[in-house]
Amino acid sequence: MTRMLLSVERDAIATAARRVMARCDELARMSSSTEGIERVYLSPEHARVNRLAAEWMREAGMSTRQDAAGNQIGRLEGAFGPEAPALMMGSHLDTVPDAGRFDGIVGVLMALEVVRMLRVPTADGSFRSPFPFALEVIAFSDEEGTRFGKALLGSSAVAGTWDAEWWNLTDEEGNTLREAFREFGLDPGRVGEAARRPEELVGYLEAHIEQGPQLDERGESLAVVSSIASARRFQLIVEGEARHAGGTPYDRRRDALLGASEAALAVERICSAEHHMVGTVGQLEAYPGAVNIVPGEAHLSLDLRGEFDGTRDAVWQLLTTEIDAIMGRRGLRWKAREIHAAPAVFCAPLLQDVVRAGILSTLPEGVDDPATIFSRAGHDGMAIGAITDVGMLFLRNPDGISHHPDESVSSGDVARGIQALAEAVLQLNADR
Amino acid sequence: MTRMLLSVERDAIATAARRVMARCDELARMSSSTEGIERVYLSPEHARVNRLAAEWMREAGMSTRQDAAGNQIGRLEGAFGPEAPALMMGSHLDTVPDAGRFDGIVGVLMALEVVRMLRVPTADGSFRSPFPFALEVIAFSDEEGTRFGKALLGSSAVAGTWDAEWWNLTDEEGNTLREAFREFGLDPGRVGEAARRPEELVGYLEAHIEQGPQLDERGESLAVVSSIASARRFQLIVEGEARHAGGTPYDRRRDALLGASEAALAVERICSAEHHMVGTVGQLEAYPGAVNIVPGEAHLSLDLRGEFDGTRDAVWQLLTTEIDAIMGRRGLRWKAREIHAAPAVFCAPLLQDVVRAGILSTLPEGVDDPATIFSRAGHDGMAIGAITDVGMLFLRNPDGISHHPDESVSSGDVARGIQALAEAVLQLNADR
Repeated sequence: MTRMLLSVERDAIATAARRVMARCDELARMSSSTEGIERVYLSPEHARVNRLAAEWMREAGMSTRQDAAGNQIGRLEGAFGPEAPALMMGSHLDTVPDAGRFDGIVGVLMALEVVRMLRVPTADGSFRSPFPFALEVIAFSDEEGTRFGKALLGSSAVAGTWDAEWWNLTDEEGNTLREAFREFGLDPGRVGEAARRPEELVGYLEAHIEQGPQLDERGESLAVVSSIASARRFQLIVEGEARHAGGTPYDRRRDALLGASEAALAVERICSAEHHMVGTVGQLEAYPGAVNIVPGEAHLSLDLRGEFDGTRDAVWQLLTTEIDAIMGRRGLRWKAREIHAAPAVFCAPLLQDVVRAGILSTLPEGVDDPATIFSRAGHDGMAIGAITDVGMLFLRNPDGISHHPDESVSSGDVARGIQALAEAVLQLNADR
Repeated sequence: MTRMLLSVERDAIATAARRVMARCDELARMSSSTEGIERVYLSPEHARVNRLAAEWMREAGMSTRQDAAGNQIGRLEGAFGPEAPALMMGSHLDTVPDAGRFDGIVGVLMALEVVRMLRVPTADGSFRSPFPFALEVIAFSDEEGTRFGKALLGSSAVAGTWDAEWWNLTDEEGNTLREAFREFGLDPGRVGEAARRPEELVGYLEAHIEQGPQLDERGESLAVVSSIASARRFQLIVEGEARHAGGTPYDRRRDALLGASEAALAVERICSAEHHMVGTVGQLEAYPGAVNIVPGEAHLSLDLRGEFDGTRDAVWQLLTTEIDAIMGRRGLRWKAREIHAAPAVFCAPLLQDVVRAGILSTLPEGVDDPATIFSRAGHDGMAIGAITDVGMLFLRNPDGISHHPDESVSSGDVARGIQALAEAVLQLNADR
């Protein structure tokens, strides 16, 4: 594999990185909350960031459209016109509650800069892709699943794996996904039109912050992603009996919250004993939730991630046995509803190679072993892997803080990331 | 002590009990929730039940007023006119969320029936108390503390122990207690006018469901209450660090929810090892509360009750040491804010005696040992004990289920309770 150094100046890359940072700040102001960043699927803020992203796409010379699932797409045709397949690049613009300003967002904006950097002028004063394939930038509309509890809605629509059962998912206010679609101006009956066919795509490349501390600990800027972890998510309900907190002696209590607390601790104990597994209880609430009532019901979420599907499923089996025992001892009932499942997705060897070549182009001569790590976090590539090859580039995430207002990435790492991603596209064109 | 059998018929008592049961049903429909019973301080439902209670008080021949803290009071003057002190009887009409229909309510309605039963007609066709003291029925406006997290607000106003710091307490919507007073039509500056002086009162008698299983287990209808348990309530905040659930390995996590879960289990372990102590975590919530974020903060409530103040305080000391250790191991910080404290209140010996005499009047000849139990639940008497003697009568509460829609009491036990309470008042008049 030869290095194909970009003909752009170092200064142009630094300018591009600064523009990415400034645009992250600008998008951070589009929030449903005045106190922190929160931007969920099919919200007014979703519409606002799509309009702004479309403007930036047009400014980069791309034609734009919002697809049938609310994903915002820009396209720059290649030498062979609109029938040619496209290399898709991007990430998502939705957020968790009280989010940082880079998760997903930086990947969309970096993809835009790569297009600006690689585009060539045409005779009529517009721009085209220099390759036999088109370049697309996609801003997925829902990766986090914050609003409806189901992640990857946007990318699942593009992958053609939308499930009709999702229409009845509800948000906290009781609005169904179907109603939210209509409210946003989308037609639920046409969601299938967002699906892309494998032959329309050359592949999918995504840059993303690591959301973990490994690159920071190694003192490196960029990593090749080998795979995206396998994940399953559950909502657990524990049922006991609500009783007066004063009058009910311990031997008469069936306290759902204590059962849920033991279950949360069991998740930590069992998952931490496994290699490359994490389990998280991110939500827990007691009902009726009064200071003087023994909780009769508790709801908790469970998020399981592992490098391999088999380990993840074995851990869930261990957990169900352990939780059965806890609830049995306490006279409680429990049930679990699976709300998300995604097998581990392995990045395509060719795309891993071109991302590695891209990272190498940013390293001093003689350094030739960029980090290769697997992603414990989920990404849109998990859905897109169903229709095309996926490649990912990770950016250093200081202290591994993500899904938090303190989430950060440096402008220097963004610059190196833009260069690596652009170089990866050039290399892909050369190697195809 | 001699038995002073009532001159009323068995049928009249049964009719009174049926009226109490029917009125409990009628009050249960005055709820802020369409799904269950919830009626909190200074709400539109509070105003509605006060109006209805006032109507029933007037129907019993009493003059009525709503005091400066929203308590509803009916009064029947005695032989010596309005300057004479009053025997106050009653309980509260506010509820916990998703409440039963008897807690507090049945005590107000039984007091009303006792007044109807004991009143004597006057020459002008109205009624008076047959005693040298007046009879008052009071419906306290806030015992549970559901809305502002502070219990006994109504009875504290009557006891003259209102604390100016409470004005800034807020409900879930952020309304302060001060604003809620004005919204309800009360003047915060005049709350002191609700306070009663010791010389205005002969004592306070309250009938209440047991909110525990002891009478049900003994197969008895009624009990003399010896004391009301000592209680302290706290709001605990655990602080860790919100992080991405996928990317953050276990050794980098400071999971506030796991610390809170361990603390909840420590409350159970430490309190259940003590005699006559219960500790309850009724509320627990994780923040930011997303399925894919390691909780950075957790809020939990703690309710401690014991027969004696000393045991209760020693247990709280043990708990703080244990929670310090838990949080230290996990790299978490924690803090506690005390939101309620009430020392154990011992029922006055004379009032215990007359309640016992009242219960004896309902028992077959030869049975002469009615149950005497201490109340683990808090009651308005805890506040009223500051200004006058307190006596309490407990009614059997099937299976001890309270603060729950399944809370129940039998019409037969209500009938026996009305007879016992009326007999206790006659006995008090004889023994004073």
